[in-house]
Amino acid sequence: MKKTLGILGGMGPLATADLFTKIVNMTKADCDNDHIRIFIDNNAQIKDRTAAILHGGESPLPQLIQSAKNLEKMGADCIIMPCNTAHYFLQSLQIQTKVPFLSMIAQAVRVAKKRYPGQKAGILATTGTLDAGVYSRAFEDEGVQVVLPDEQQRRYLMSVIYDGVKAGKMPTDPQPFNQLLGEMQSRGAGYFILGCTELPVAVQALGLKNNFVDATTELAKAAIEYCGYEVKE
Amino acid sequence: MKKTLGILGGMGPLATADLFTKIVNMTKADCDNDHIRIFIDNNAQIKDRTAAILHGGESPLPQLIQSAKNLEKMGADCIIMPCNTAHYFLQSLQIQTKVPFLSMIAQAVRVAKKRYPGQKAGILATTGTLDAGVYSRAFEDEGVQVVLPDEQQRRYLMSVIYDGVKAGKMPTDPQPFNQLLGEMQSRGAGYFILGCTELPVAVQALGLKNNFVDATTELAKAAIEYCGYEVKE
Repeated sequence: MKKTLGILGGMGPLATADLFTKIVNMTKADCDNDHIRIFIDNNAQIKDRTAAILHGGESPLPQLIQSAKNLEKMGADCIIMPCNTAHYFLQSLQIQTKVPFLSMIAQAVRVAKKRYPGQKAGILATTGTLDAGVYSRAFEDEGVQVVLPDEQQRRYLMSVIYDGVKAGKMPTDPQPFNQLLGEMQSRGAGYFILGCTELPVAVQALGLKNNFVDATTELAKAAIEYCGYEVKE
Repeated sequence: MKKTLGILGGMGPLATADLFTKIVNMTKADCDNDHIRIFIDNNAQIKDRTAAILHGGESPLPQLIQSAKNLEKMGADCIIMPCNTAHYFLQSLQIQTKVPFLSMIAQAVRVAKKRYPGQKAGILATTGTLDAGVYSRAFEDEGVQVVLPDEQQRRYLMSVIYDGVKAGKMPTDPQPFNQLLGEMQSRGAGYFILGCTELPVAVQALGLKNNFVDATTELAKAAIEYCGYEVKE
């Protein structure tokens, strides 16, 4: 039985388009009708998640709930959210909506553990995700050690995410990103979680190669399978 | 006053992702919150438009109406449809829904007339769009002459659209497409309407350069402006 998919998007819009494109490209299909019915609420007005977690900014939760209910009304059988930081609010969101969520964090951690057994996970994410321990706690529950970016590296990642991708100004110089990866590897990271949906977009624009676990791609695969479709090899 | 946008999509899914990405990339914005709220119904199960127009296949109209009503329920202030062939049903669709549609055909013809005054329009589209005269009639109403693909060229375009983009198998050889363009130019075409939403995707994959009017891009620009946002230069 095929299921429909709801995407609670807009955080940010380009990351939402990236997830949507990945789902379409990774679905095994010979024609339009072989694809998943997908409802998207690209709610770009949702309050900033990191600002809410760190600086007492307005909570995004009421808008997240409204979008989830919208997707439920449209007929979504499950909901995914292409924003790692927003997963900080997942529990509250699940209390308010009947439709099940597929957690991006859970997919990424599961795949990472399987693909890189026994290795330490480097977490690349917003300051909100890092400070709230969204990934650290999930990995530690699974007995996986993590390597986190230092203060300067967090600032660099935030500038790539906010001044870069979210501002429509794609980064062009791979050098500082590669330096960050090298330094975290020297502190023991065996691979890197692209734990902010703007990061796979930036990494692709910069042409970076490394042991990346792209949380967006893993969420796309999980959604395709949950909806009863096949992932294209 | 900012408006929200509904995308009646799924025809096909990759073309819908292409339109969505174009809207995001072309909106002047410095952060997530500067973007348009967009509702998408990627209804991949909509019956094939060309088959309905040409061979008495099942009509897509009931599904188009259902998706339009879905978008209306979500709160869409206007609706756009990233499928040129589906515009054959636009009138019937508009009778059934209160939300206004921005017509992709109208945008493309308006831009083409302004950008290439006095020149003949080469129409690249599905056999359904061509046989129903979706573009021909619109151009003729404006006093613009058209150059249409011949039988063999129509078959080539249909294979690029159906066996290529819609089947997830991107075309790789630019030669036959360039030959088609050269032949239509020798018959007087001064520019080409990419009048099927799979064609801009194929043209980009093939790296083709010509006097193209990309109907998807023109629809994206019109939607951004209609919703009260600014198109990025």
